Order: sequence, then structure tokens, then C-alpha cells
Amino acid sequence: MSWTITSDDIHDLARGAAVLGTGGGGDPYIGALLAAQALAEHGDVTVATLDEVPADAVVLTVAMMGAPTVMVEKLPSLDEVVAPVHALGTHLGRPVTHIACAEVGGVNSTIPIAAAAALGLPLIDADGMGRAFPELQMVLPTLYGITASPLAFGDEKGNVGVLQTVDNSWTERIARVACVEMGCSVMISGFPMSGDQARAALVPGSLAHCIEIGRGITAARAEKADPVERTVALLGGRELFAGKVVDVERGTTAGFARGRARIEGADAAQAPSAMTLSFQNEHLIAEVDGRTLVTTPDLIIVLEHDSGLPITTEALRYGQRVRVISAPSDERWHSPEALALVGPEYFGYDRPAHRFDGTVDADLEETAA
Amino acid sequence: MSWTITSDDIHDLARGAAVLGTGGGGDPYIGALLAAQALAEHGDVTVATLDEVPADAVVLTVAMMGAPTVMVEKLPSLDEVVAPVHALGTHLGRPVTHIACAEVGGVNSTIPIAAAAALGLPLIDADGMGRAFPELQMVLPTLYGITASPLAFGDEKGNVGVLQTVDNSWTERIARVACVEMGCSVMISGFPMSGDQARAALVPGSLAHCIEIGRGITAARAEKADPVERTVALLGGRELFAGKVVDVERGTTAGFARGRARIEGADAAQAPSAMTLSFQNEHLIAEVDGRTLVTTPDLIIVLEHDSGLPITTEALRYGQRVRVISAPSDERWHSPEALALVGPEYFGYDRPAHRFDGTVDADLEETAA
Repeated sequence: MSWTITSDDIHDLARGAAVLGTGGGGDPYIGALLAAQALAEHGDVTVATLDEVPADAVVLTVAMMGAPTVMVEKLPSLDEVVAPVHALGTHLGRPVTHIACAEVGGVNSTIPIAAAAALGLPLIDADGMGRAFPELQMVLPTLYGITASPLAFGDEKGNVGVLQTVDNSWTERIARVACVEMGCSVMISGFPMSGDQARAALVPGSLAHCIEIGRGITAARAEKADPVERTVALLGGRELFAGKVVDVERGTTAGFARGRARIEGADAAQAPSAMTLSFQNEHLIAEVDGRTLVTTPDLIIVLEHDSGLPITTEALRYGQRVRVISAPSDERWHSPEALALVGPEYFGYDRPAHRFDGTVDADLEETAA
Repeated sequence: MSWTITSDDIHDLARGAAVLGTGGGGDPYIGALLAAQALAEHGDVTVATLDEVPADAVVLTVAMMGAPTVMVEKLPSLDEVVAPVHALGTHLGRPVTHIACAEVGGVNSTIPIAAAAALGLPLIDADGMGRAFPELQMVLPTLYGITASPLAFGDEKGNVGVLQTVDNSWTERIARVACVEMGCSVMISGFPMSGDQARAALVPGSLAHCIEIGRGITAARAEKADPVERTVALLGGRELFAGKVVDVERGTTAGFARGRARIEGADAAQAPSAMTLSFQNEHLIAEVDGRTLVTTPDLIIVLEHDSGLPITTEALRYGQRVRVISAPSDERWHSPEALALVGPEYFGYDRPAHRFDGTVDADLEETAA
């Protein structure tokens, strides 16, 4: 049944999205500001659940593409948010009927709200990942043969482009270099889908889940309970490590925020003693004392030690006291095809996927051999 | 009055275009092969002179964009040549009526012939420069306020994009990074113009001029006359230097073939003793013993010493005996606005434009001061 997003929901939704965003997707506060402004100007947004989207709907995803380090300093205007949707609608020659989130993440869960408000269109309570990933083709729709293109991109200057590519990796490659040239951050709209395609390929209920997580953190703090434990319970995950951030290496290269963070155990006598997180916009690998604990596609999330507030990768800094938690991804991310798209090997780490609960997915190469 | 390009014209046209291409635009032999194939498959091409193009014509330029070093190894298929025209025609929502050349150059004077043949459209006897330049915005239409975008680009894999940008420099910037990502060579179609706009902005008669130059070289060789002198006379230019290529530095960087060539005088007692040519796809600066002789926008052309055949920048190599000639560009390239677009300063050389005849254009900064 459809429901409504009002300005009262935005803050919790953005906070929950930053949790599921696994460090990527930009600052939830900034994304919330933009969505709140859009709701104030254009009114509340109707949220349609996946089961009620008509089979012949024309669904487009809307997202910000780029390095989160830059995105947080280049918040788009509403005109900029809707420009790629208009360009793509014109290209398709059919009226767009629904907006959807490509991923869950601080900015990329709230920008589609702003787009839906400004366009007067319903938003679908779903997303393409159930988490955030750094590259455009890394969505479940890719596994369902849904093409990213035609995909439109646009910047704050008014430049717009529409791509029609031979596969979703080429959409990513061309849009990424354009994005870098246009200032490392652009608005995009793509993955045109029918209602039936959206129903099959998207992760249902993500927006409601974000609000639930955000409210959980708020409620736990009000009740003097542990917000981290509350979040772990809501995600069905577990806590991996607690400690202090002692080192962050970070670079904005090839349009991504790439780096590693080292977290030392709060207690010197604690064993294991240090965790290393490797990220490309999102956290990809969690290691403890050199041993792989959890990897993409499962969720690795850094929360502030006491408040339980999510910390994005670009906000990680020396001295923060944090807790690292992990949670299962959508099960579809563990198929061999999915692991080829988003598994550790794709990102250059020579190891199989380690799940949040300590089990290890079959090694793809060994399976093939 | 309209005329017809047949396969008999292609060879001379490509040779003349390689002369006017000032070292850029790719190997004329390769461009000629493609045009000849298109004429064989689709029949001769009608060439319309600028004065007979209807005021409400829909004119598109067609060109290959990229580093000539790569272009000569990645000759497009006819499908690839016409794909951006189809994409742009669909985007415009109006039938394209005429094809035009953006520049004169080995490949970029013959590829529009192939496009016109395959599309069954007339080609206009004109081009956007009267020579070749390395960047997309460097055409006279830019000076007339004609926008490069909507501009379509496409590659051999089937990827296509359509850009709509805020100015022609942004078309260049985004198309260039896409071109580099797509393999350093793409087909493009852009600069949509009416017949009236084309009449005002293009250089008239370029294709006929190319054929005239190509035939002049052929005829001089048959008559045992000097083909270099013949070409100099046809261009209204002068010979600058004769000697042997002793050094070529060359790199394919940021999508361009950039470098310098050093030519030593044939006679050791000769003074001046050495010429240096600096190029970015095309020859930009000719210096003798450290003194600037001629610069962009006037034409600097390298011809083989005895045969008078043009040598493109990517074909320059040690030991070639060459003669360097220069000729005036279209006079519109010498306005202050034009020099800001294509003068030596734009390319990073801190000097005013030196004309082919030894005179120097007013220094822009001094004029402004």
C-alpha cells in the first residue's frame, strides 16, 4: 500500500540510508537538506510499494554519480536533479511515470525524493542494490538483463548527455570519464524499466527499511539503550570490532574516493588488536590482523561508538571512536554472476567473498576449474 | 552549380586534403579507401555548392575525432560512420538534408563523402576551417555562434552518445574524454546548421580546392615539373625550408598526437641550419634556429622533397627528405576572437601569430593593454 514521505521522515531516512550505504553515497545530512527543500517547495511525495506499480509503468532511477568527497561539496540544485530525467524522457518519447533509487546511501536515497517531489511523480519503495556500490553497473537490474542505457547525465553548468551503450559496463566507463571531466560529480538518470521489470529486479521496501533503521537509532538514544545493538538487530547482522581510527589513507582517483582506514582496539590487551577497512566510495574489505573477516557484497558499516551514527568513508578521520558492524546483503548478490560483478576479485582483491557470519562463498576460479 | 564526386576524384581529393590538413586529419590513403568503398556500394555523391543550399536545409558535419596515430589503425565501417548522424537526426526530430566537412584533412575530407554516399544525401562543397585543427570547437561556425551540440559520437562497438552542452569548448571536453575512453578514436556528427548559417560560416569550395591541389601534384609529376612549386602556387604560399628529418619526438597524450620534429638543412653550409616544427595532430609552430617563422592559424605543411606528396604528422620519421611550405589561412582566423580560439597562445606558446608571409598579428595582450 502506498504511503507518503513528509519532511518529518527525511532525517531518519537519510540516517538509515547512510547505514545501509556502507560508507558510500555521501553525507546524509546534505542529502536530507536537498530533499527537505524539495518537499517544502513541491509538497509531500507519494511512495508506491513495488507490488502496486503498474506493469507498463515507465520507471527511471535517479542518482548522483561521482566521488563522495566531491559530492558533499557540490550539492545539486533541483533544476540539476531533474534535468537528466527530462533529457531521458524526451529521448524515450514516453512520459516517465515513477522514480526509483539506484542504491541506498546518504545522498542517493534522498536525491530521488527531491526528484520525485520536483517532478510530481511517485517514488517506488525499493532500490537497485539494497546497499551502495561504487560503479553504475553494480545493480541487481544488470543481473536481470536490464540495460543502464539510455542513461542521461548532467552537471551544474547545464551540460547534458544521453548515452546508448552496448552493455552496462560501457555506460559506466563513458559516464565515469564524463563525470570526472565535468567536476567529479554529476546527476544521472537511467535504467528505464517497466513495472514488471522493477518488481523482479529491485530490492523491495528499502526506503521504509531506512526510516526504520534511522528511527531505531533515534529511539535507542532516547531510551539510553545502545543504538549500535539496535541497528545490528534491525539488520540481522553482528558487531565485528570496536576501536579508535588511527590512520586513514585516502585519494580521489579516477573519479572515486579510494583508501584504507586502520582502527586499533580500544583496549591494548584486546585481541584481535587492529582492523583494516579498504574502500572505494564504499567499504569493501574488513580485515583483522591481516585475516579477512568480511568482504563485499556483504555490508561493512562504521558507526560512531556511542551515538551509533553512521560515518561515511569521506568523513572517517583520526581519533574517531567507532564500532564496525556487518550485515547480510540481498542474497542475490551471492550468485556466481553477481560475485563476478561486485565480489572482491572484481575490485582487485584475490580472495573469495567472506560473508558477514564468517562463512565463505565458493571460490569462483576453483568452481570453474 | 552542383557537381559529382566519383571514385576517379577520390585519390586526388584525399591528397589535396592532406596538404590543406597541415599534417593532421590522418592518412589520406586510408580515408580514400573508405570513400571509394562507399561510392562503389552506394553510387556517386552529389556535391552542392554553398550558394545553392536551401535556407532551411538541415546540415550536419561528420568527422572522425581522435589521435591520428590511432585513427589510421581503426578505420571505421560505413555503419559506424552513419550511426552518429542517425542518432543526431533522431534527437533533432527533423530529417537531415546535407552533410558537410568540419575540417579539411586526409580522413576528415573523405569520411563525409562516405557518409553522404551511405546516407544518400548531398555533400556541401565547403568545410568549417579551410584547414585542420585538433579540437572540435576550432571551427569558423563557433565564431558565428553556431553550437557544436547537439553532437553525437559513436564507436566501433556500437556505443553512441548525444551531448547538449553550454558552449563548444564543453562539447570538446566531454567528447574528448569519451573518445579517449572509447579507444582514442570515434565518429562524430554535430554543428547542426541551416543553409543560411552554413553559407555564412563555412569556407566555400574546399572540396574542389582539394581536388585541384591533388591534380596539380599529379600533373606536375607527370610533366617532370616541381610538384612543391605547383602546390605553393595553388595555395598562394611560399616555401620555408628544405632538409632532412633528424629527430621526431611524439606521444599520444590526452587523446592527441603531440610532438616536435627537427629538420636539418640539406646543405651543411646552408643558413639557417635547422627548422623545428611543433604539432598537436596538426603543425602549429615553425621555427628556424630558435626564431619563430610561421604559427597557427596560417598553414604549415610538410611535403616529400621530390614527389611533393604531403606527409602527416604521424608519418614523419627520421631520414625523410622534406620541404616545408606555408600558406595563408582563411582571413577570418586572424580576428582577435579567432586567435583566442586557435592562436599560438591557446596552445601554450607565448607569442603572437606569425603569418605565412613574415608579418606578425598584433599581440592580443598588448592590444588589450
